[in-house]
Amino acid sequence: MSTPEFLPAVTADVPADTVRVALAEIAAAIGDDRVLDADAASEFRDPFQPPAWDAFAAGGVVQPESAEEVQQIVRVAGKYGIPLWAQGQGRNNGYGGAAPRVSGGITVNYRRMNRVLHLDEDLGYALVEPGVSFQDMYDAIQAADANLMVSVPDLGWGSLSGNSLDNGLTYLPNGKDHAAVCGLEVVTADGELLRTGMGAMDGNASWNLYKRSLGPSLDPLFMQSNFGVVTKLGIWLQPKPEVITHVHIDVRRDEDLIALVDTLRRLRLDGTIDGVPCILNTLLIASTMAPRSHWSDTDPAQPLGDAEIDAIAARIGVGRWHLRLALYGDRPVNAHHLAKIERAFGVIPDVAIRSTTTGPQEWASLPDPSDQVYAGVPNLDWKDMGGWYGGTHGGHMSFAPVAPLSGQEVYELQRWLREQFESRGLDHTADLIVVGARSLVSVAGITFDYDDEAATARGYLAMQDLVREAGKIGYGEYRAHLHFMDLAQEQYGFGDHAYRRFVEKIKDAVDPVGILNPGRHGIWPAGLRPAR
Amino acid sequence: MSTPEFLPAVTADVPADTVRVALAEIAAAIGDDRVLDADAASEFRDPFQPPAWDAFAAGGVVQPESAEEVQQIVRVAGKYGIPLWAQGQGRNNGYGGAAPRVSGGITVNYRRMNRVLHLDEDLGYALVEPGVSFQDMYDAIQAADANLMVSVPDLGWGSLSGNSLDNGLTYLPNGKDHAAVCGLEVVTADGELLRTGMGAMDGNASWNLYKRSLGPSLDPLFMQSNFGVVTKLGIWLQPKPEVITHVHIDVRRDEDLIALVDTLRRLRLDGTIDGVPCILNTLLIASTMAPRSHWSDTDPAQPLGDAEIDAIAARIGVGRWHLRLALYGDRPVNAHHLAKIERAFGVIPDVAIRSTTTGPQEWASLPDPSDQVYAGVPNLDWKDMGGWYGGTHGGHMSFAPVAPLSGQEVYELQRWLREQFESRGLDHTADLIVVGARSLVSVAGITFDYDDEAATARGYLAMQDLVREAGKIGYGEYRAHLHFMDLAQEQYGFGDHAYRRFVEKIKDAVDPVGILNPGRHGIWPAGLRPAR
Repeated sequence: MSTPEFLPAVTADVPADTVRVALAEIAAAIGDDRVLDADAASEFRDPFQPPAWDAFAAGGVVQPESAEEVQQIVRVAGKYGIPLWAQGQGRNNGYGGAAPRVSGGITVNYRRMNRVLHLDEDLGYALVEPGVSFQDMYDAIQAADANLMVSVPDLGWGSLSGNSLDNGLTYLPNGKDHAAVCGLEVVTADGELLRTGMGAMDGNASWNLYKRSLGPSLDPLFMQSNFGVVTKLGIWLQPKPEVITHVHIDVRRDEDLIALVDTLRRLRLDGTIDGVPCILNTLLIASTMAPRSHWSDTDPAQPLGDAEIDAIAARIGVGRWHLRLALYGDRPVNAHHLAKIERAFGVIPDVAIRSTTTGPQEWASLPDPSDQVYAGVPNLDWKDMGGWYGGTHGGHMSFAPVAPLSGQEVYELQRWLREQFESRGLDHTADLIVVGARSLVSVAGITFDYDDEAATARGYLAMQDLVREAGKIGYGEYRAHLHFMDLAQEQYGFGDHAYRRFVEKIKDAVDPVGILNPGRHGIWPAGLRPAR
Repeated sequence: MSTPEFLPAVTADVPADTVRVALAEIAAAIGDDRVLDADAASEFRDPFQPPAWDAFAAGGVVQPESAEEVQQIVRVAGKYGIPLWAQGQGRNNGYGGAAPRVSGGITVNYRRMNRVLHLDEDLGYALVEPGVSFQDMYDAIQAADANLMVSVPDLGWGSLSGNSLDNGLTYLPNGKDHAAVCGLEVVTADGELLRTGMGAMDGNASWNLYKRSLGPSLDPLFMQSNFGVVTKLGIWLQPKPEVITHVHIDVRRDEDLIALVDTLRRLRLDGTIDGVPCILNTLLIASTMAPRSHWSDTDPAQPLGDAEIDAIAARIGVGRWHLRLALYGDRPVNAHHLAKIERAFGVIPDVAIRSTTTGPQEWASLPDPSDQVYAGVPNLDWKDMGGWYGGTHGGHMSFAPVAPLSGQEVYELQRWLREQFESRGLDHTADLIVVGARSLVSVAGITFDYDDEAATARGYLAMQDLVREAGKIGYGEYRAHLHFMDLAQEQYGFGDHAYRRFVEKIKDAVDPVGILNPGRHGIWPAGLRPAR
């Protein structure tokens, strides 16, 4: 096995013997069954990495069952100086999966910490362990017959914690501007327990209700970071509205994206539309339904042209751009807002607008899985969208810069991305996730057959170029793929990398041995910091 | 002059000679006029502190005009190890005014950095310098004839930056959950310039549009903190709605607060009500209108009883509790939501609900200044509310714990607070600021005649007791008065003060000399850290 040279160096030198000793000590302290054997541990890798590559592999996997057990694991790691890689469920598909940034260390996986510790129907929140998946949360709400909804992403198998701590996107109103999390419990590098916000006071009932602290507020500092290991988090839930109105808007021409975005922004800013709408291009929608070979018998090395894309759009019955959104409210309010939406988007030539309005009893059985998602019903319908080229062994990586919610800018970014993709022989898929009223995350999927090492390598190299070239024109990623975290962070160079230098000062202060998630999103402890 | 012994110790030893040398060096570097003479500097103190007390006094005041000048000031301070106290306009009334936590250092006041650097009508935001007041922001919007509103607090003279960086509360939808700020420029202790979020990338247009970073997000870390000095901040603005419906709801009995809070929470959670409503008790409303002597000729040392409070309520025409809120939207949506509000609150016996619906042209001349505030029109109408006992030399301090938005808990907290106040011979005023759908900040004002040292000392001692006793029952302040910052922070003791220890590790790492706002909200650099 070998590591292709274009992958970033694995900068830690973790002796396997020491890891074995540490794992034995962990097993003795918290139980043999908490340490996975090699077979069970082998699942926690990047599922989209060719098996022949040996990059980013854990030296062991542990599954604690409580915060106290996490503390013991952290203390043992500190004693031996072993890097830990803490995660939630270990999904993170498209961004490196369950693999750690530094090989040879110990992965802390939370699948066994999956309890909903408190569900508060009156105040609309839950306190959960970090392994609680969106599906678990949904099930707990159903079991309690609580009048609540959780904001979910496209795939319901990931954990609330893992997704939230990577600034992952979800689609209901609590998902906008990453607003859903409130109050964390964290194990720090010295093995102690910290609670953020009002939780820093024993017995304070506002821990998961109030967003700030007395003193500096830490919740967002623990997002995409390696300053602590989250063992509990508060998550906001919303009451079910009287009705949800699902709206789907298709525009026919590529350049209609400009009016689509500008109109959406106005209706987002004025409060007509809440939550997190998405704008998908034709090929993204096609990729959620079937591999490329289903849609075209042309040479996969030649990107599909406009005529072919138009043909696929016609076959599916969508436009070149498709906007999906949902309205949450009372029936007359939704009706008023829908009429306003129809008027506003109706001026775009050949626009197609359809909508359905449904009540709570209907949401779990909505025929469109994407409508289910906007109703807080998790599913796995989009699981195979990475199979565009590779079919059942299709892998994907997401290139995901943030952009202003401004039609012209978004359109020009998409033109640029399409050129970048097509010049490398790749079809351009786009999923524009409208995270708030002022910005969106523009996710472009690079897909490949991970059994084809050469094709996968081409995908990786395309990704590398995209990160670098986008940085030159002022676009930075919201979240980086494991293999490109350093490069993505390198693009944030204002003030001679003042941000990274400031954050790494914090890293060295709160984790002097450098054991917690080293290298995450390009932030390294002193002992492992690469030459730059 | 003397410092009363109940005030916390001034822990820095800053030689006046060194400060003089540093001020001269600053003057030479950035201009003589940037350093205020003793007369001009004397304004920047706590206006409510008896003049005979010498606690919390600056050794000098500088007023830079640019971020570059701030960098030079910070470098000089670092060279001589002089504490700086950076502020916005220097208001902070009720929490210590313009005074610094450590005497003898240099106050950096931003009144001359008052430019709105960018106002974006399309994307709904502004980039401002830290001295821009709410009034300045309003004026800039008017001058540009932009269809925008800024979320304002009760008093319009404070700065957007100063207020926001203390987690100050404002009342429009962007004020909820402290959501208005997006993207900071910060001078760090080494005199370098840092930009947060997408601003960490040169030329990234999403700096003030997207809430997170690649890597740990820092904006909330700079709130109530002393890790850097903010020199620019992005602030979100909202388009003017078609109409605003101002709603005022009065309930007659003290215990009606329970239903008032629970009903409000339900309507807040389901999206019927947006923004930041307030619930005021009778005496708070009375205090905004006239001193105590106007309302009662009873002995001020004897707190007003229920019958007297009822009489004042009747005289003003309000209830024992008064809820103010505003709806922002299209006319039919507001009408639907108003009807829903009337139905929901209408079940409370003897409730009085009144409302007015107005369009943009009417907002600046609304007769009720509180309605103006909810329409984003800043004013100073409540400026003299601290004169309950002292009249024109009335001072006040705010005791402000966070509480769950739960009727029973809020009611019991108010009962407890009233007992605490009355047992000390003080009338209890309450302003419950509903910062989000799940929590409120319960502000109780301790007022006194600051020309009466003994009365002022009694007020201070009451405050000290309140912070300590509330901590014992699980209530912590959202923001602490300068004199009680250490005590308020001391209440947050979870995990043997894990929060404070973690935050002070950061402090020592990013400001090793300890020059930036030492002691702010109880966070000290190593060199000045008090024995605990």
